[in-house]
Formats: sequence, structure tokens, C-alpha cells
Amino acid sequence: MKTHWIAIDWGTTNFRAFLMQGSKPVSRISQPCGLLSVEKDQFAPTLQALLQTWLEEYGNLPIVMAGMVGSQQGWHEVSYAPLPCMAKNLAARTLAFTTPWGSTAWIIPGANGNSPFSQPDVMRGEEVQLLGLASLHPAYQHTALLPGTHSKHAYMVNGEITSFATFMTGEIFSLLSQHSILGRALPEQQEDADAFLLGVKTAQQGAPFTHLIFSARTRRLAGEIAETSVHSYLSGLTIGYELQALPTGLQAWVVGSPALTARYQLAAGPLDLNLIPANGDDCFIHGLWHLFCQLQGTPS
Amino acid sequence: MKTHWIAIDWGTTNFRAFLMQGSKPVSRISQPCGLLSVEKDQFAPTLQALLQTWLEEYGNLPIVMAGMVGSQQGWHEVSYAPLPCMAKNLAARTLAFTTPWGSTAWIIPGANGNSPFSQPDVMRGEEVQLLGLASLHPAYQHTALLPGTHSKHAYMVNGEITSFATFMTGEIFSLLSQHSILGRALPEQQEDADAFLLGVKTAQQGAPFTHLIFSARTRRLAGEIAETSVHSYLSGLTIGYELQALPTGLQAWVVGSPALTARYQLAAGPLDLNLIPANGDDCFIHGLWHLFCQLQGTPS
Repeated sequence: MKTHWIAIDWGTTNFRAFLMQGSKPVSRISQPCGLLSVEKDQFAPTLQALLQTWLEEYGNLPIVMAGMVGSQQGWHEVSYAPLPCMAKNLAARTLAFTTPWGSTAWIIPGANGNSPFSQPDVMRGEEVQLLGLASLHPAYQHTALLPGTHSKHAYMVNGEITSFATFMTGEIFSLLSQHSILGRALPEQQEDADAFLLGVKTAQQGAPFTHLIFSARTRRLAGEIAETSVHSYLSGLTIGYELQALPTGLQAWVVGSPALTARYQLAAGPLDLNLIPANGDDCFIHGLWHLFCQLQGTPS
Repeated sequence: MKTHWIAIDWGTTNFRAFLMQGSKPVSRISQPCGLLSVEKDQFAPTLQALLQTWLEEYGNLPIVMAGMVGSQQGWHEVSYAPLPCMAKNLAARTLAFTTPWGSTAWIIPGANGNSPFSQPDVMRGEEVQLLGLASLHPAYQHTALLPGTHSKHAYMVNGEITSFATFMTGEIFSLLSQHSILGRALPEQQEDADAFLLGVKTAQQGAPFTHLIFSARTRRLAGEIAETSVHSYLSGLTIGYELQALPTGLQAWVVGSPALTARYQLAAGPLDLNLIPANGDDCFIHGLWHLFCQLQGTPS
């Protein structure tokens, strides 16, 4: 019988846990209990309360965590693994400790390195999804996009993460739609695929970003996009801007929720990119399972 | 004896008025009474209250206004003058009306056209500063940067505005420093010219903007910029990104407050741009005086 354990993705705004049986998730919890809502000395009691039902049923299960929980603002800071890195490098730097209630717990480190644009860069959590992607879809090399608040474009060779770059696409979209003049005094917004694609095609023209986004104002003033479609247009601009950094004709994985990967696939059309979706949860779970086996010294 | 009149720059967040005698300002008012704080039907009483002292002393002086007061959200919407445009085109489209207390009032139109990056673009207020610049510093052509919330890069030939582009530099800086993860949990910030210049030089490397700005996080994590210098670094990134769209070796006017033009001149150094400062108020006043004379049919 495969043993039970708990896989956790603890980020800045969200907490997600999976009750695992071997490599299979058998139950899930999702709560808006990210780092921002947890006081520095309250991680242990918060986690114990979140996992109470599972701990009562199965006892002090082993817990493997990844994400911002290992950052300066997290529970315990775990130093980044430098690029290039593969599963064994992450496992070697993983922090192991015992929780106050007696579970063995691990926090996976993130990864850091220089981006292809010569900028220092970091990730926490996505390295686990990348390992899972490589485990679920073995190949000599992988190019993967992991869209989100801070999208990552990553490259792997032979199971090793060799480089990546962060694009603040999701956060910039939120800032522009919620706090800027571009999103001010708008009626309720509707999904508008045409406005989204107009945004993608506009971004493709290569204008500087801080100039490009002003078109959300001018096109609205000119009546070229509806008042109810400004968010769709802005979404197209920001995702299109992220994707136009990639070479046309590229084939790449896009790892995330079905809704988000579908949105990136829609944007990929006019940019002549071939994006293949992979479920972000599946990749996360498989990556963490792979690491859990390494940590225990057993083959996954 | 030169007649008195009132010049007004009424923007989204600020209201500035100059009591003029001919081309010379003799008194000024500055209040945070921009459009956002004025109800649609309250422009007349708001203006009358703001100008009360001058109106009591000098009677119903003529009033010339420019800026967002002529926008959809303003007092009266005045259609943009299409590019190319010069003083006579703006004068021809200026809206004239009489205030409830009997002043003759004019609202100068903005200008619109396609940017050099093929994006629709608009300005309101900067067209007046450009006319003033050309009037104060006559030349066959002018390249001018007008930094601010929405910076403009404009080109004039023979007193005619031929093209311009907007960069949302100031607004993006505010969003990133006040609302994004990059500005979260920072101690009180200090001016740091070294961090500012590091930002400018980093922007010069040509990374995509939404990737570039993440370096404010990674450089802070790595201890390369002090916690108290993150705003200076972000300011350098955003201004540097705006300026790196310009050809090296360019000579251009930079029109604005002494503090802001000095900041742009500091950024211009590593980018090999030659920026010559011009006072934004002086340019505004001279531009509006030039238009006031046109509107009255007298030479300025």
C-alpha cells in the first residue's frame, strides 16, 4: 500500500494542499491563506489548523512544501539553488524540520540565476512544476511558460533547469486594470476575445511597453474598443507583450490552470507560437512527488 | 498698459492658475483641485471660488484654459486638433464661452495623431507647452520631452507639432512603488543617485519592461540595492526605459519643473543624450499667451 503524505503549495496570496497517496492526490484544500495573511510566528498553528482533518484521520503525515513559504517573508527561509539545477540539487538544499505536532516537514528551495536578458532572477514553486513537467512528459529538452502573477519562461535540458526569466504580466495587468487611469470609471467588464486579440496584435508591433499600454486609453477614447472590453484588451496587450519576446515558430509547454493556458493559447495564434497545455496542479504534484522520493532515498 | 487675463492649467489632479499682465505672470494659485475632485456640474462655481480674489480686484477677466478640463471628464469636451497642428489650428478649434459671472473663457483643444510606434495617441495641455517652447526658443525644429505622469516625446518643425508619443512613466512608477510587490514592506525611502543610475543602466540593456522591473525585487533580495533605495532604483528603471527608446547622441529639450528636468538630465548621461532644460511653467504661460493673442486677433 502506498503511504499517505501531504503536498503543499504555499504562496504569497494562496495556500493549496493535496492529501497524497503515493503519486496520486486523494483530497485537496484551497484557502486564501497566503503569506500575507500569516504572522511570522503563526505558520505552525496556521498549518495545523488547515490540515486538522487529515492529521486527525492519518496521524502526523510527512509534509512537503514549496513556494514563497521558503522566502524571507515565509516560515523558514531556504536559500535558492543556483542554476543549472535538477531534482538532486533541489533535494540537497531542502530544509527538513519537525513540526510542533510531530510531522516531518520539508521546504523545497527556489532557484536563482541570470535571465537570458542578463537580469538576476528568482523562482519559488515553479521549479517544482518544471520537474513535474519533465517527469510527466519526458524529453531531451523543454521550453515552458508558467503564466501567472509573475510568469516564468524556463528552459530545461535533460531534466535540468538551465535558464529562466520572469515577466510580471499578471501583476502589471492587475495594477493597470485596478489602479491606473486605464481602468478608471469603467462599467462591469465582459470577456471579449476580439478585444483580447486586438491587444495581442497591437503588442506584436514592438512598441515600448509604457507607450503601448496608453493605447488602452486612446482606443477607448476613439471608440475602437468598447467600455466593457478594456480589461480584455489590456489582458491581450500584457500577455502579447510577454509572448512577443519569444521567437516565432517556437513550440513550448504552457503550464497552469486550464483557463489561463487556454488564454495563452489564444494569444499564441497571431504570434505564430505553438503552445501545448499542461495542467499546473498535475505538474506541481508530480514534481513534489519526485522530490519526496529523492528526499526519502526511494525511486519515484 | 498691458491688459490682465488669467491662464489656467487644469489637469486630472491639479489646478494651476496664473494672473497675467500681457505675457508676464504677476500672481499664481496652485490647488489639488483637479478634475477628479470636481463634480461634472460644479466646474463654474469651483473656478469662481478659486479665482475669487483676482475677480474681485480686476473684474471679469478673460480666462484661457488648457489641459484635461477640455476632456470627456472635464468641463466642456473640446475635440482634439489632428496632427500636424500649429497655433492657428489650435485657435481655430478652441471653445469660447461666457462664464456665469460674465468672464469670456476659452478652452484650448488637445492634439491627436498616430505615434511613431503606430499607436493612436493624444495630449491635452502639452501642446500649449510646445508652442511656448517654440516661441521662447525659436528654431527650425524642436525635439522635446515633457516628463510627467504621462510623459510626451514630441517633434516640431517650423512651429508645427508633427508627431508625438506618450510614455506612462510617472504613473507606472507610482503603481510599482505604491501598489506592487516591488514596493511592499519598504522602510522610508531616500534619494540615492547611485541606485537611480544603476536603474538607468539596467534599463539600457534592452530587456522587456515587465521582465526588467522584476530586477527591483531580485537586486533587493541579493542586497545589491539598499531597502531605502528601491524607489530611486525604480525611478531609474522607468525613466531609463523611456529614454532608451531615443537614438543615442540626440539633442532634445526637456520641459518641466526644475526637479524633474534635473532628474531626466541625470538619466541622460549614461544614455549619451543631450537634454536641455526648459521651465514647464514658462513654456505653458508663453504658449497660452501666444494662443490668447491669436484668439483676439492681435500679434503676440
